[in-house]
Amino acid sequence: MLSLRHKSSERGSSGLFALEGWRELGHCLSAGLTVEALFFCPEALPEGHSVDSLPLPQGVRLFQVSPAVYERIAYRGGTEGVVALVRQVRLSLSDLRLRPSPLVVVLERVEKPGNLGAVLRSADASGADAVIVCDPLGDLYNPNVVRSSLGSVFTVPCVVCRSQECIAFLRERGLAILTAQLQDSQLYYGTDMRRPVAIVLGSEAGGLSPLWREAADAHVRIPMLGSLDSLNVSVSAAILLYEAVRQRRGGVSL
Amino acid sequence: MLSLRHKSSERGSSGLFALEGWRELGHCLSAGLTVEALFFCPEALPEGHSVDSLPLPQGVRLFQVSPAVYERIAYRGGTEGVVALVRQVRLSLSDLRLRPSPLVVVLERVEKPGNLGAVLRSADASGADAVIVCDPLGDLYNPNVVRSSLGSVFTVPCVVCRSQECIAFLRERGLAILTAQLQDSQLYYGTDMRRPVAIVLGSEAGGLSPLWREAADAHVRIPMLGSLDSLNVSVSAAILLYEAVRQRRGGVSL
Repeated sequence: MLSLRHKSSERGSSGLFALEGWRELGHCLSAGLTVEALFFCPEALPEGHSVDSLPLPQGVRLFQVSPAVYERIAYRGGTEGVVALVRQVRLSLSDLRLRPSPLVVVLERVEKPGNLGAVLRSADASGADAVIVCDPLGDLYNPNVVRSSLGSVFTVPCVVCRSQECIAFLRERGLAILTAQLQDSQLYYGTDMRRPVAIVLGSEAGGLSPLWREAADAHVRIPMLGSLDSLNVSVSAAILLYEAVRQRRGGVSL
Repeated sequence: MLSLRHKSSERGSSGLFALEGWRELGHCLSAGLTVEALFFCPEALPEGHSVDSLPLPQGVRLFQVSPAVYERIAYRGGTEGVVALVRQVRLSLSDLRLRPSPLVVVLERVEKPGNLGAVLRSADASGADAVIVCDPLGDLYNPNVVRSSLGSVFTVPCVVCRSQECIAFLRERGLAILTAQLQDSQLYYGTDMRRPVAIVLGSEAGGLSPLWREAADAHVRIPMLGSLDSLNVSVSAAILLYEAVRQRRGGVSL
């Protein structure tokens, strides 16, 4: 149990991950993921909450634990009182069902779990079709990804793959590849995002690889008007996603 | 030294705060803040960096420390090798110099230092005139604010005050108060942000107080198109700030 939380390699081989938090568990159950076991500590549940009220499928193994045991298995140290062991869902590109004018986010070599989680949260909010994570340095079910996504890791279709596969997929499906970069770029709000688009962002440390820069249909820039030279990757993703929302739903003036 | 890092009350009474990181120190020096003392550890400096290259004003007390001492005084545990003691700047509302069509961000009761830092970073990037922090639960010179702002806490004019004072100030200066909220609201991209505006955001936990909701000239909504009911406060701030940038610099279609 403890090792599931700490080691990416163990999460990979067991096919399970540990999940905490009421809201996250709710999203996980609504999304139809398979909960294998649920550990709960009545003393640590939020006021007025009961495990009986959860829409748990039949066959879930329930384990009531003491506060002392709960403290050892809980990662967040919060007071939510539930830790679930959940079967991972591994989608591949061919599993993705895109709508007629898809809006997709691609992250290349994302480093921080918190950033990946924050991008998933904005992708959910902006109604994006999918998040594609290329050549990541961590894994999708890291507890900090689940936590910072507030459970949207379960609601937004998310695929992990190599950059080359992703580029081939986007081309085959007719999505314009828009890479977020400052060099040789046009202003993002002067770029048509009503067409099928993939918004591609690199790591905060290294930016995008030449592979993506060359594969791009357009390089788009968020103007930097102060003294810093970059925004947080999840902030950049949200600004670009919501510009697509604005163009698609509101008035457009490119 | 250690207590400066940990206790908000000590930062308040001493008038000093501890600062780490090359980039942050650079912004701090460019912004003209007074560095009282600089602790450096040659073994922990980044490759090719030297304290001699810093544009330190005369009179700064320099202390060379061993790796063991540095490890004890450094908060981030990184390898940047510098910790400075810096005199705090306490701006008040009357110190703010606003441009003809100001763009200001107001945060009410912000809880997490990382969120405040991230808003400062986006405020710098979008060229906002100021960030006003009302009734905060932490302080401006918390190490996590400095860190997550990447030093923009020194480049963006930032005032801490009570909500009532802030509302009076904004009215007196003729800024439209736009509160970010879902209830009784209009779409943010259908709201004119070319005029002088203050974008006001509440805490993630509690939202905005009735005081601000009632003081608002318009309530603006970022549409939530997925399963979650909110965005991170720093993400919301960035979306709204960059819509103001788009309207002011790009084409407008309200």
